[in-house]
Amino acid sequence: MSARTGILLVVSGPSGSGKTTLCRKLADSGEAHYSISCTTRQPRPGEVNGKDYHFLSKEEFYHKLEAGEFLEHAVVHGNLYGSLKTEVISYLTGGTDVVMDIDVQGADQVRSCPDADIQRAFVDLFVMPPSEEELHERLSGRGTDSREIIDLRMANALEEMQHWGRYAYRLLSSSREDDYAKFQALVAAERLRVSRIS
Amino acid sequence: MSARTGILLVVSGPSGSGKTTLCRKLADSGEAHYSISCTTRQPRPGEVNGKDYHFLSKEEFYHKLEAGEFLEHAVVHGNLYGSLKTEVISYLTGGTDVVMDIDVQGADQVRSCPDADIQRAFVDLFVMPPSEEELHERLSGRGTDSREIIDLRMANALEEMQHWGRYAYRLLSSSREDDYAKFQALVAAERLRVSRIS
Repeated sequence: MSARTGILLVVSGPSGSGKTTLCRKLADSGEAHYSISCTTRQPRPGEVNGKDYHFLSKEEFYHKLEAGEFLEHAVVHGNLYGSLKTEVISYLTGGTDVVMDIDVQGADQVRSCPDADIQRAFVDLFVMPPSEEELHERLSGRGTDSREIIDLRMANALEEMQHWGRYAYRLLSSSREDDYAKFQALVAAERLRVSRIS
Repeated sequence: MSARTGILLVVSGPSGSGKTTLCRKLADSGEAHYSISCTTRQPRPGEVNGKDYHFLSKEEFYHKLEAGEFLEHAVVHGNLYGSLKTEVISYLTGGTDVVMDIDVQGADQVRSCPDADIQRAFVDLFVMPPSEEELHERLSGRGTDSREIIDLRMANALEEMQHWGRYAYRLLSSSREDDYAKFQALVAAERLRVSRIS
């Protein structure tokens, strides 16, 4: 009477919106599994295979890509990134909620995935910075970056922010505490969804 | 950027599920407007016209019914009850959330209302008692009612409970505190809905 399948919570938003903090916090509290991406880039010092990323060779990545194993994938700075469909689905069908921190293009790919398990689980949220001024503040970092770098980050963020209308939910960032309370409310509410009760 | 239209939260569930307490508590906290029904029954001592109900004559009621002014209506023990569409819509378009505590048939009527403002605002929740044993306990009341009355209430409740699958959300009642926390989470989440941001 009370078993349910998991939520696939896809979270997008520009750098500086705080989306990654929200996702990490939810996963760290044990409330959801943070989806681990595959990547062809080299591990950085301290990164653990199977924890931070699944590190794959380009050959392995392309093999999985051609086999349709990725829920979404992207090329960033010449490296390939992707999320394994079977991994995500195994959590969902086991009743574990999965959180994915991905950009607008990645979210589009997940949203259009025809797999019934994914469709049933899918919920998308766009996190917006409170204002352009505050965003600029957040993207300026520790004051060590050049004006050009900050301007580029700002332009990218503003471009990304055009697309919030595609999402089911939008969170307008205020304080970290308020943001996380709303994020938790979203998860709590989606856990009451009749369409995921089996 | 941040204005939104209200949520029309339609809450159903059998007697003993605690749905009325949830709705009243939300309204009393100032978080939502509790939709006031029209009725043709006589006011009971202490009931205030325009607060507890809009008390109408049968002629007035039928006039409004024929004019399509009711969002939903029902006959209970020979008396007519109904919710005024214009009243609900004026709260919603003003950005105030409205909570309606109605039965399965009433919820069906609201769900199938073709009005765009209602469709946009509509969210439905079914509140389930934790178990049949607990429901029986709650419906037995103060021990002053006859076995027949209690059996009838039980039968009505079990019939009503068949229909939770029509709702978007289902809350399985546990404690009053947990139930209200989930109810608040649902409202908080629905306030992030992109489709209601204008």
